[in-house]
Amino acid sequence: MLTGLNAVLIGGDARQLEVIHRLAELDASVTLVGFDNLQNQYGGVSKAELSESLLCEADAILLPVVGMDDDGKIDSVFAAEPIQLEEKHFKSINAHAVMYTGMAKPKLKQLCQDYQVRLVELLERDDVAIYNSIPTAEGALMIAIQNTDFTIHGSRAMVLGFGRTGVTMARTLQGLGAKAMVGVRREDHFARALEMGFEPFYTHSVSEKAKEVDLLFNTIPSMIVTAQVIANLPHHAFIIDLASKPGGTDFRYAERRGIKAMLAPGLPGIVAPKTAGRIIASCVSRLIMEDFSKRGNEE
Amino acid sequence: MLTGLNAVLIGGDARQLEVIHRLAELDASVTLVGFDNLQNQYGGVSKAELSESLLCEADAILLPVVGMDDDGKIDSVFAAEPIQLEEKHFKSINAHAVMYTGMAKPKLKQLCQDYQVRLVELLERDDVAIYNSIPTAEGALMIAIQNTDFTIHGSRAMVLGFGRTGVTMARTLQGLGAKAMVGVRREDHFARALEMGFEPFYTHSVSEKAKEVDLLFNTIPSMIVTAQVIANLPHHAFIIDLASKPGGTDFRYAERRGIKAMLAPGLPGIVAPKTAGRIIASCVSRLIMEDFSKRGNEE
Amino acid sequence: MLTGLNAVLIGGDARQLEVIHRLAELDASVTLVGFDNLQNQYGGVSKAELSESLLCEADAILLPVVGMDDDGKIDSVFAAEPIQLEEKHFKSINAHAVMYTGMAKPKLKQLCQDYQVRLVELLERDDVAIYNSIPTAEGALMIAIQNTDFTIHGSRAMVLGFGRTGVTMARTLQGLGAKAMVGVRREDHFARALEMGFEPFYTHSVSEKAKEVDLLFNTIPSMIVTAQVIANLPHHAFIIDLASKPGGTDFRYAERRGIKAMLAPGLPGIVAPKTAGRIIASCVSRLIMEDFSKRGNEE
Amino acid sequence: MLTGLNAVLIGGDARQLEVIHRLAELDASVTLVGFDNLQNQYGGVSKAELSESLLCEADAILLPVVGMDDDGKIDSVFAAEPIQLEEKHFKSINAHAVMYTGMAKPKLKQLCQDYQVRLVELLERDDVAIYNSIPTAEGALMIAIQNTDFTIHGSRAMVLGFGRTGVTMARTLQGLGAKAMVGVRREDHFARALEMGFEPFYTHSVSEKAKEVDLLFNTIPSMIVTAQVIANLPHHAFIIDLASKPGGTDFRYAERRGIKAMLAPGLPGIVAPKTAGRIIASCVSRLIMEDFSKRGNEE
Ligand SMILES: NC(=O)c1ccc[n+]([C@@H]2O[C@H](COP(=O)([O-])OP(=O)(O)OC[C@H]3O[C@@H](n4cnc5c(N)ncnc54)[C@H](OP(=O)(O)O)[C@@H]3O)[C@@H](O)[C@H]2O)c1
Ligand SMILES: NC(=O)c1ccc[n+]([C@@H]2O[C@H](COP(=O)([O-])OP(=O)(O)OC[C@H]3O[C@@H](n4cnc5c(N)ncnc54)[C@H](OP(=O)(O)O)[C@@H]3O)[C@@H](O)[C@H]2O)c1
Ligand SMILES: NC(=O)c1ccc[n+]([C@@H]2O[C@H](COP(=O)([O-])OP(=O)(O)OC[C@H]3O[C@@H](n4cnc5c(N)ncnc54)[C@H](OP(=O)(O)O)[C@@H]3O)[C@@H](O)[C@H]2O)c1
Ligand SMILES: NC(=O)c1ccc[n+]([C@@H]2O[C@H](COP(=O)([O-])OP(=O)(O)OC[C@H]3O[C@@H](n4cnc5c(N)ncnc54)[C@H](OP(=O)(O)O)[C@@H]3O)[C@@H](O)[C@H]2O)c1
Repeated sequence: MLTGLNAVLIGGDARQLEVIHRLAELDASVTLVGFDNLQNQYGGVSKAELSESLLCEADAILLPVVGMDDDGKIDSVFAAEPIQLEEKHFKSINAHAVMYTGMAKPKLKQLCQDYQVRLVELLERDDVAIYNSIPTAEGALMIAIQNTDFTIHGSRAMVLGFGRTGVTMARTLQGLGAKAMVGVRREDHFARALEMGFEPFYTHSVSEKAKEVDLLFNTIPSMIVTAQVIANLPHHAFIIDLASKPGGTDFRYAERRGIKAMLAPGLPGIVAPKTAGRIIASCVSRLIMEDFSKRGNEE
Repeated sequence: MLTGLNAVLIGGDARQLEVIHRLAELDASVTLVGFDNLQNQYGGVSKAELSESLLCEADAILLPVVGMDDDGKIDSVFAAEPIQLEEKHFKSINAHAVMYTGMAKPKLKQLCQDYQVRLVELLERDDVAIYNSIPTAEGALMIAIQNTDFTIHGSRAMVLGFGRTGVTMARTLQGLGAKAMVGVRREDHFARALEMGFEPFYTHSVSEKAKEVDLLFNTIPSMIVTAQVIANLPHHAFIIDLASKPGGTDFRYAERRGIKAMLAPGLPGIVAPKTAGRIIASCVSRLIMEDFSKRGNEE
Repeated sequence: MLTGLNAVLIGGDARQLEVIHRLAELDASVTLVGFDNLQNQYGGVSKAELSESLLCEADAILLPVVGMDDDGKIDSVFAAEPIQLEEKHFKSINAHAVMYTGMAKPKLKQLCQDYQVRLVELLERDDVAIYNSIPTAEGALMIAIQNTDFTIHGSRAMVLGFGRTGVTMARTLQGLGAKAMVGVRREDHFARALEMGFEPFYTHSVSEKAKEVDLLFNTIPSMIVTAQVIANLPHHAFIIDLASKPGGTDFRYAERRGIKAMLAPGLPGIVAPKTAGRIIASCVSRLIMEDFSKRGNEE
Repeated sequence: MLTGLNAVLIGGDARQLEVIHRLAELDASVTLVGFDNLQNQYGGVSKAELSESLLCEADAILLPVVGMDDDGKIDSVFAAEPIQLEEKHFKSINAHAVMYTGMAKPKLKQLCQDYQVRLVELLERDDVAIYNSIPTAEGALMIAIQNTDFTIHGSRAMVLGFGRTGVTMARTLQGLGAKAMVGVRREDHFARALEMGFEPFYTHSVSEKAKEVDLLFNTIPSMIVTAQVIANLPHHAFIIDLASKPGGTDFRYAERRGIKAMLAPGLPGIVAPKTAGRIIASCVSRLIMEDFSKRGNEE
C-alpha cells in the first residue's frame, strides 16, 4: 500500500486514468493538475493548480507518456489549456521525489539534471517496451488490413528489426498466417528468428529481399527503407513504419514511386488506451512502491 | 485451357476483375455486360449489351457474388445502371450452359429451375466458404481492434459456431494471443476445439459463459445471442455478428443495455476484394474447366 | 450419478483402471471379471467369475479397447489367463443392456447381432477418435525423434490423410517447427489445410511430392505409400505408418530400398495409457449416464 | 573458399563428420587425427598421427564438442584409443592459429592461456546455443513422452529459466498443447513470456507454483528444484533437468519422495547428431572464413 505517499499527476490522456485508479486503490494521496474536465472521482484524489508548494510536498510526480515539450508545456486532454512548467517548479521539487514520464525530450532531461530531480522514462524500460509492443503490433495489423486489398494470411510480410517491437510484430503476423521475414543484424537474432519459425535475413541484403514483399513493417529507428529498397518492392507493397519520428523510410521516394507508405506513431494510446494505461499504471505503481518501501526502510 | 469457351459476365464488383483476368489467361472468349466504365483491357475480352442471342451462345454465365435481386436487377460498380434480367433471357440460355453466382436469392433459384438452367452457388461450397473465412476473420479482427480500447491479446474472446467460419475465427484470435472460447453443439467439435487449444463449451451454457467474455464473435445463423446472454456480458464487451442477415443477436436488447454490437456482413469483399476475387476466380475457372473437358470428352 | 446401475468389466489393460475409477465415483455397482491381480480397491467394486447370471444382471458390459478375439478370448493384463466368452453368455444378456468396446472384430459383431445385444464401438466415434489422435501424434513424434539423426524442427514432414488423426498429426508437427505437407483428396480439406498453414497437395501427386520429404506419416488405411512413392523418397527419409494393420505402406519395397519404415499401431495405450484410459472412461460413462437416464424416464 | 587453409581435427563423434564435410567442400586442406576407423573419404582430407610439426602447420585446430579432459585426453568414437595432447603440442601451435571446441574444461583453458593459443568455445556463443536448444528441446520432449503415462497436450509444464534453452523449451511445449509456465527472474523476461502466451512467474515463488505441475523442465544451472519445491509437486510429476552437471535438482530428495527425476545432458549429440553436427560445422566454418579473409587482408 501507498498510504501516506503524495503523488502529483500533471496532464495526460486517457491512459492516466488507469494510473489514477491504481494509485487511489493503493491508498496514495493523489493530486491532479490539469484534469479540470475529468468527472469521475476516486477517494483520496483531489484537483489543484500547479504551484511550488504542491510540488514541494510531492513524493512522486507523474507527467504524461509523451512528457513535456521543449518549451515547458504539458498537454492534457482533460483541460482547455496546456500546463506550463517552469524552472521554479523544478527548483521546488523535494530531493527524494521521483519524476515519471514515458519519454523525455531534451529540455526535460536538462532541467531534471540541473535541479537534480530523479527522472524515470518508463518507455525506456524493456518490460514496458515489450508490453507496449502488443498494442503496437495490433495497431499495425489494423492499418495493414484497412489499407490493402489482400489478406495478411498468405502474404509475405517483412519485419525490420528484431528488438522489443520487432519480435512481437513478427509473431503477430505469423499468428495470422503470413510468412514473416525478419531483418536482423545479429547472429543470435538470426538464430532465434529461425527457431521461432520466421525467415531471417541480414539487413545488408534488405534490398534484395524487398522483391518478394507484400507488407513491410519497419521498427529500426534509422534510415533503412531507402530508395534502393523501395525501388525493389512490388507495386502493390505497403510500408508501415513504426519507428519513432521521422521513421526509417524514404517517404519522399515512396510517394514518387507510387508505393503506399505510412508513419504510424503512438499506436498503443490510439488503438488500446485502456491496455496502454494499465501497462503504465502497473509499472509506475510498482516502481513507486519499491521506492516508498526503500525509503521507509532507510528511515 | 478454355480455348473456344464462351463466358458471359453480367455485373459485379472489383472481385469480378480477378475472374475476367483468369478466364482471359485461360484463353476463353469473355463478354462483359455492365462493365462500361472498366478501362483495363485483356485480350479476348469484349463488351456487349445484354441480349438473348448473347446468352444463347454462352457456355458459362457469371453473375456477381451477391447474385440477382428478386426484381431481376443485377448491380455493377462498373456501370451507371443495374442490368435487368428477364424471363426471356433465361429462356434463351443453352441447355449445357452453367450459371455461376455467389449466393442465389429465391427468384434466381426459381427462374433457373423453371428454365432448367444449371445454377452453381459458389459460396455454398465448403472450399470457397473456408477460403472466404480468412478475409472474414481478418475483417472481424480489424473491427474488434478499431472498436475497443483494450488489446485482443490477453482478452477472452468467445466464438459461437465451429463451422467453416468459426474454426478460422477462433484460430485467428488464438494467433493474436486471445483466449478463444468456442461454443459448439457437437461432441466431435468439442473434441477438435480442445485439441486445437481452444476452450470449448456447449452452446446450451452460453449465457453462463458470457460472464467472462470481452469479445463475442457470432457465426451461428440463428438467434443465439439472446437478451439473456447479453444480460450476462460485462459492460465493456463487444459483439461482432458475422452470421448472414439478420444475424444471431438481439441487437435491440444490446442497445438497451448499452452493449456495443455490430452486424458485419460481406467482409471479404470489403477488406480484401483482391483475395476474395481470386478465391472466386480460382474456383469458378476450375469448375468451368472440369465442365468443359467433360463435355469435350462426351462429344 | 449411476446409483443402482450394474456395470460388468471383462478384462483389459491399464486403461480400464480409469474406467473403473470413474464408474465407482459415479456410484455404479461395478463387477470386475479377470482382474485377479488388481490390488487397488474402490468402494462399490467387487470381483467375480464370468457367469450367465452375472451378465443377466448387468446394465452395461465393458470389454477392453481391443475387444474380443475371433475365438472368443478376452485378454487381461490383470489375470494369468484370458477370459473365454461363449454363446451362452451372449444369450444371457439382458435386452436393455449395452456392450461397450473400442473396436469389434467380426465374431463379436456377429454374436451381438445374433443375440440382439446393443454394441457400441467407442473408437468409431468421432470425438473419441479425435481425443485419441493426441496421444497417437505424440507417440509418432517420439518414434520420429528416436529414429532420426536430424531434428523435427526445420524438417519437411508429409502427413497423408486429413481426417481425425491427420489433422492432429499435422498440427503437432507444425507446433514443433516442421514444414507440414498434407496429402488430401477433398477440396475442402485442401482449403482447410491451407488456412491452417500447412502445404496441402492432392494425393494423386504424392510420388512427385515425395522427393522433398524427410519424414512421412501415413494415416490413410489403404495402400498409398507405394513402391513408386518410396522410390522417390530421399535416402534419409523415415516412414511412420499409423494406419491400422496392415498400414498403407509397401514395407517390403521400403526394406529393399533401404528406407526405414515402421508400422506403429496402438500408440495411445502405449505412450499415454492414463490419458487414453480417461478418454475411454469419460466417453463410456457419459454414454452410460445418457442411457441410464433415458431408461429412467421411460419407466 | 578456404583454399590454402590447413585445418586439423583431433577426435570427436558423429558431429565432426559434418565439420569435415563442410571444410572439404570449402576446399580447405583437412588432416584428421584419431579417425582411424572412418571409412568415407572426401577430397583434400587425409589422416595423420598427432605431431608437433602437424600442429605447427595448422591454421585451425578443431577439438570435439566436449573438448579435452583435464588429463589431456581427447576421445574419439573413430579410434580405439583416446588421443593424448601434451604441453609440447600447445607449444608448437602457430601464433595466428585458432583452436575451436564446444566447451573447454579448466586444463584446456589454462594451456591455451599459457601458450597464447586463441581458443573459441562454440557452445558459449549465443547463436550456437540457440540452434542447439532445438535438438535439446526435442530430446527433452522425447524423454517426457517416454516416461509419463499422460500426454504433453493438456498437461501443465513448468520451464525454469528463460534463456537460450528455456525460450525454446517453452515454445516447444506450447506447440504441443501444454500449458507452459515459465519461471523467470527478470521483469523483461516476464513481459516477453506473457507476450508469447506463456504463464510467467518469478522464481522466488517456484515452490508455490510447483503444486500444479505435471512436468518440470529445468534450465537454470544452480540449485533451484530444492527439496521444498519437490515436496510440493504432485506425486505423478516428472522432472527433467537440462542444466549442465550437476543440474539444479535435489535428486536425492526427489528419490526419497518417489518423484521421478532425470538429469539429461548432451541431448543434441544424442537425439540429432546430424543437425548438431551441422550447427557446429556451419558456425566453425563461418568463423574460420572470417579469420582467414581477415588475415588475407592484413597480409
Ligand atoms: N509506432 C508506435 O506506436 C511505436 C510503439 C513502440 C515503439 N515504437 C518505436 O519503434 C522503434 C523500435 O522500438 P523497440 O522498442 O523495438 O526498440 P529496440 O528493442 O531497440 O529494437 C530496435 C531493433 O532495431 C535494430 N536496429 C537498430 N539499428 C539497426 C541497423 N542500423 N540495422 C539493423 N538493425 C538495426 C536493433 O538491432 P540490435 O538488437 O542489433 O541493436 C533492434 O533489434 C523505436 O523507434 C520506438 O520508438 C513505436
Ligand atoms: N460476415 C461475413 O462477411 C461472412 C462471411 C462468410 C460467412 N458468413 C456467414 O457466417 C455464417 C456461418 O457461415 P459458415 O460458412 O461458418 O457456416 P457453417 O460452416 O454452416 O457453420 C455454422 C456453424 O454454426 C453452428 N450452428 C448452427 N446452428 C446452431 C445452433 N442452433 N446451435 C449451435 N450451433 C449452431 C453449426 O454447427 P453444426 O456443425 O453442429 O451444424 C456450425 O458449426 C453464415 O450465416 C454465413 O452466411 C458471413
Ligand atoms: N497407430 C495408432 O496408434 C492409431 C491411432 C488412431 C487411429 N489409427 C488408425 O489411423 C487411421 C486413420 O484414422 P482416422 O481416425 O484419422 O480416420 P479418418 O478420420 O477416417 O481419416 C482417414 C483419412 O484418410 C483419407 N483417405 C482415405 N482413403 C484415402 C485415399 N484412397 N486417398 C486419399 N485419402 C484417403 C480420408 O479422406 P476423406 O476424408 O476424403 O475420406 C481421411 O482424411 C485408421 O486406420 C486408424 O485405425 C491408428
Ligand atoms: N541437456 C542438454 O542437452 C543441454 C543443451 C544445451 C544447454 N544445456 C545447459 O542448459 C543450461 C542453460 O543453458 P542456456 O544456454 O539456456 O543458458 P542461458 O541462456 O544462460 O539461460 C539460463 C537461464 O537461467 C536463468 N537463471 C540463472 N540463474 C538463475 C537463478 N538463480 N534464478 C533464476 N533464474 C536463473 C537465467 O536468467 P537471467 O537471464 O536472468 O540470467 C537464464 O534465463 C546450461 O547449464 C547449459 O549447459 C544443456
